[in-house]
Amino acid sequence: MKINPQRLWQRLMAIAADGAMAGDGVNRQALSLEEHAAWRRMLAWAQENGLEACSDAAGNLFLILPGADRQAAPLLLGSHLDSQPTGGRFDGVYGVLAALEVLTCLQENGIQPPCDLVAVSWMNEEGSRFAPGMMGSAWFAGQRLLAAIRACRDAEGISAGEALDRLHQAFPLPQYAYPLPPAAYLELHIEQASVLEQAGCPLGIVTGIQGKHTWQVELNGDSGHAGTVPMATRRDALQQFSSLASALYQQVGQSDAAVMFTIGWLALSPNAPSVIPERVCFRIDLRHPDSTTLARLAALTEKLIQQQTAPCEVSLTRLSAAAPNAFDAGLQQLIGESAAALGIASMPLLSAAGHDARYLAAICPSAMIFIPCRDGVSHAVSEWAEPEHVAAGAAVLLETVLRRIDQR
Amino acid sequence: MKINPQRLWQRLMAIAADGAMAGDGVNRQALSLEEHAAWRRMLAWAQENGLEACSDAAGNLFLILPGADRQAAPLLLGSHLDSQPTGGRFDGVYGVLAALEVLTCLQENGIQPPCDLVAVSWMNEEGSRFAPGMMGSAWFAGQRLLAAIRACRDAEGISAGEALDRLHQAFPLPQYAYPLPPAAYLELHIEQASVLEQAGCPLGIVTGIQGKHTWQVELNGDSGHAGTVPMATRRDALQQFSSLASALYQQVGQSDAAVMFTIGWLALSPNAPSVIPERVCFRIDLRHPDSTTLARLAALTEKLIQQQTAPCEVSLTRLSAAAPNAFDAGLQQLIGESAAALGIASMPLLSAAGHDARYLAAICPSAMIFIPCRDGVSHAVSEWAEPEHVAAGAAVLLETVLRRIDQR
Repeated sequence: MKINPQRLWQRLMAIAADGAMAGDGVNRQALSLEEHAAWRRMLAWAQENGLEACSDAAGNLFLILPGADRQAAPLLLGSHLDSQPTGGRFDGVYGVLAALEVLTCLQENGIQPPCDLVAVSWMNEEGSRFAPGMMGSAWFAGQRLLAAIRACRDAEGISAGEALDRLHQAFPLPQYAYPLPPAAYLELHIEQASVLEQAGCPLGIVTGIQGKHTWQVELNGDSGHAGTVPMATRRDALQQFSSLASALYQQVGQSDAAVMFTIGWLALSPNAPSVIPERVCFRIDLRHPDSTTLARLAALTEKLIQQQTAPCEVSLTRLSAAAPNAFDAGLQQLIGESAAALGIASMPLLSAAGHDARYLAAICPSAMIFIPCRDGVSHAVSEWAEPEHVAAGAAVLLETVLRRIDQR
Repeated sequence: MKINPQRLWQRLMAIAADGAMAGDGVNRQALSLEEHAAWRRMLAWAQENGLEACSDAAGNLFLILPGADRQAAPLLLGSHLDSQPTGGRFDGVYGVLAALEVLTCLQENGIQPPCDLVAVSWMNEEGSRFAPGMMGSAWFAGQRLLAAIRACRDAEGISAGEALDRLHQAFPLPQYAYPLPPAAYLELHIEQASVLEQAGCPLGIVTGIQGKHTWQVELNGDSGHAGTVPMATRRDALQQFSSLASALYQQVGQSDAAVMFTIGWLALSPNAPSVIPERVCFRIDLRHPDSTTLARLAALTEKLIQQQTAPCEVSLTRLSAAAPNAFDAGLQQLIGESAAALGIASMPLLSAAGHDARYLAAICPSAMIFIPCRDGVSHAVSEWAEPEHVAAGAAVLLETVLRRIDQR
């Protein structure tokens, strides 16, 4: 029994029409009409093989190959159908279509799994229309309240609640009463970095997702005429920023080889060529795979900010603090054995980016499989994965599922 | 013979109605209908005392008390009537009204000067509607071409040429054929800084205007995912900026007590919280009163920029380079003697901000007189000068003029 690589590739290219942009890109926002179109396509493919389809209050889509024991904890496979505003043809949707391909293979081969086998598309992973992302998986894992999710609004003022109601009107699917927790969760995804590509390896077994802390910092000084206020009496917020940022880049950003330190967003006020900056507002993104190190670097970041701001006043707001997570060791081993059995080279790998699997890992054994993407580029219209890698990833996912349900 | 301080103050308050804003502010843009209204007021006051009125191709306004010898080089006094978008009641307009007050005094006292005595309002000193500013004085001094001035457009797309044509239609004044160069130029202005206020001195004799160099710098690196690109391989433009700016603030901005170093404007791209900055574009404003020091610091600035940018690429564009200028020593001495004769304390002072006198100084002996303004605040609706300082400045201007034309 093998996956059908042509069918998988054709479906990947076909579904890219839902939200297609110039230059092969995709803009398929969560709960948008483009995502509705992608759902319609998924449901049609599911119907071809007699799969059941359900949804839930958070707008997750479940396509189910019923198991022998419907009360047994199900095995979940999946990812997400939404994209970044200038996204590509692989991020998210590949994992959902590969999950569908696995179910389709089993169904075509007349194999009934012992438990339900479920292909899931989680609602709003990207968080680009409704922030923050990973809404569907976070709600599913009991880590976010439905009311808070429904209250989020997009740039046009439409709430996620209104968008969810429209989804349910358009798709009056039964509510899936899945036994919780699931038996396990597997997610296949493009790497979004170039570790595999540089190693010349077609498959990554993801060991975990690095932790991430974010802050917003505001430095407040005094404005004034660039030609008249003596340097000694200035409280120049940009001067203070430069010195503080230099210390952070050096002491936090160079602390070891695994740390990721980024100031990606900054707003300067009044931002006029001959006026001393009064206020600098910026955001820090700090990531590390090791929990203890991340906590230490987060503390160092806050200490440097508090120390280095005089003569300006500082206002420090923590935006998020996600600890690193490690994926299930047993599942990682199973993926490795499956890849080896198929003659596909694999390597362990850390995920730098966040994924829905982060939330699933909190409620059941979870793991992720990565395939290379060209030049490590993702969240861009030029995102690309080679057909042979797309096929290899899905083949390893199928093999892992078969081994997990003892069909090998 | 004395100036009339009540009349001067009343006129200052009256003309503030032309472009009045909430909170006592003034928004009177160059060549706007609000400036037209101020011209109408000036012309009415000039007519009361039989002064001649002329204009020229660059929209400067000349009010003339004819001298005994109309072919002798005239003595010019003045400043500008336009304001910043959120300007006050003193910047510019005070110097024009004080000049008018001097002419009015002489006329009322039946004194005919040996040469024409001219109160001037220079077109567009502020440069806030049409950039750059000081258009009228720069053209008058032969340092800017009329065609280039006329081609400038405001934010609504109206060219200065169109606005000048409308001015001339509204005010069909004779073209003044002034003998060039003028015999001298005197400009009275609020200080726009707080040196006089802090010294408790009512009058400043301006020794010169500090030089000013400006650049635009662009640092170009690589964008990327904040969670996946290893620090060692990044080309983060904001990281580079922080290190470069720190070096500039330290080595240039702290080189001596007189230097002014400002980065007032900065644009970051793509400016998203979890994306490595690809490009930082910023502007440097460097000022110093000493020509040699300014040239040395400008060279150091450019050297540091070229040295400190790796691994990013740098693009450095010089926007302006104005050398410091020193005002006429004889006129400075005359102002000091005039103040002393009136029992008004004075002190020498450097102008940090630019003024029309910078251009006049290139063609004739020129000098400036400053009075204090509250808290050094200017270019703001809260700009304020005390009535006794307003009177003292005008009195010293009159006395200086009388001594210059040998009427004392």
